[in-house]
Amino acid sequence: MKPHRELSAISHAGGRFTASARALANEVAVAISYNGTSQAVLMATPSDLADLAIGFSLTEGIIAAADEIERIETVDCGRGLDLQLWLAGNAASRLAARRRSMAGPVGCGLCGIESLEEAMRATPQVTAETRFSAADVASAVEAITEAQALHRRTRSVHAAGCFSPRSGLVALREDVGRHNALDKLIGALTATGQQAAFAGGALVLTSRLSVELIQKAAIAGCGVLIAMSAPTALAVETADHARITLVASVREAGFEIYTHPERIIGGALPHVA
Amino acid sequence: MKPHRELSAISHAGGRFTASARALANEVAVAISYNGTSQAVLMATPSDLADLAIGFSLTEGIIAAADEIERIETVDCGRGLDLQLWLAGNAASRLAARRRSMAGPVGCGLCGIESLEEAMRATPQVTAETRFSAADVASAVEAITEAQALHRRTRSVHAAGCFSPRSGLVALREDVGRHNALDKLIGALTATGQQAAFAGGALVLTSRLSVELIQKAAIAGCGVLIAMSAPTALAVETADHARITLVASVREAGFEIYTHPERIIGGALPHVA
Repeated sequence: MKPHRELSAISHAGGRFTASARALANEVAVAISYNGTSQAVLMATPSDLADLAIGFSLTEGIIAAADEIERIETVDCGRGLDLQLWLAGNAASRLAARRRSMAGPVGCGLCGIESLEEAMRATPQVTAETRFSAADVASAVEAITEAQALHRRTRSVHAAGCFSPRSGLVALREDVGRHNALDKLIGALTATGQQAAFAGGALVLTSRLSVELIQKAAIAGCGVLIAMSAPTALAVETADHARITLVASVREAGFEIYTHPERIIGGALPHVA
Repeated sequence: MKPHRELSAISHAGGRFTASARALANEVAVAISYNGTSQAVLMATPSDLADLAIGFSLTEGIIAAADEIERIETVDCGRGLDLQLWLAGNAASRLAARRRSMAGPVGCGLCGIESLEEAMRATPQVTAETRFSAADVASAVEAITEAQALHRRTRSVHAAGCFSPRSGLVALREDVGRHNALDKLIGALTATGQQAAFAGGALVLTSRLSVELIQKAAIAGCGVLIAMSAPTALAVETADHARITLVASVREAGFEIYTHPERIIGGALPHVA
């Protein structure tokens, strides 16, 4: 399945209706299963699905490294796609133990107090020592904007990109779901042994920033996170605890630094009494 | 908890860094439980929570009418809020039967083939006969934009509004999650006996349109759906099957009609051979 397709529409402009056609993003139900048992269903853009499977498995804590996945198969079920992952010994045992601990009447791991705790899970602290100038922030946003090929066609997908001040755009992934775009990027860099790029560069997201994106960024070891839109208050707090430098609300005229400004050259203001 | 709060930031503009403060949207983990058993956890803006509980229950098919909820209590669990709903007899029996049918090792109803089917569930067909002019579309978007009070402060929340060509804005709800904004709106109108406004007017969404939003709109009986951003291809197909008139990609200069143009005056073009 392609990531987009052409559909007919009727355009209204200048007081007139005319027949037209528009490229729209494809969206498909994707189930992710491990060793034969389903874990989750996402609505996703059908591209870079192996990256999505690897990234989701990492950021959900199912695997600790890409080589814990022995095999990935994509099965078309008609109503959607089933990404079937087969895990190596250690990861398989961890998953089995985790599933036993989730038994219960609606034991989905997203229920009641247990799930409030899961939703607000502890986020690792990032130690990356990378530093960015204000000009690097502008370059990163420019590089990501230029590379959004699917969004340019469809106007309806988000992008997650990794940018290095030295070498420019490292990789970019797109998806109708902003979480999926980030999981795809994390999967792509991990599968190719480039995960150190998150500590040495910046993660750039085109979307608004909610807390789950910060949790995923922290797991990836991202020191500088640049979001084109605004964050929620909880996203800022979580980035602060995770020691992530959060740059957001990037506009032509400037940007805001919400947390850990010491990674932005000149950003750490002298304390005002 | 308030829907937003002020946080300090460092602004970069004109080559200079200065201390500043920004209002950001609050985001909190909200568990929804029925008769003492948890069903789901959402990340949501803590406002209009009773509307959210009612709308979610309707669009998830847990209840068929607002009076099937006997009582709603909000419990602060520290890590999040628990919305505890107590259902009347019929709805309680239906939910118990549904839960029995979901038993299994990870029986969360979002697993494997069953969950692909759930994700792609059948959508009801809308029979609303309302008609909109191009000027009504512009008025609807203008009215919703003016009423987005939380978004104007925070730049990070979506809105769902109901607009009537005769009486203007009926109601509007905002949330960091676009699905939550729509559930809140559906809950608000249903709780006040105004659900017919969806058939007589239009639903206006500020967000991109993915398939779940169309499913919710169809359940609410919405005939005209106006989305400010672009839809996915699956959203267009689903709107077509549900007999919803989908107007999207609304810009200053015009808009696109993707499905059922007969509800837009002048929009049903003569067939071009």
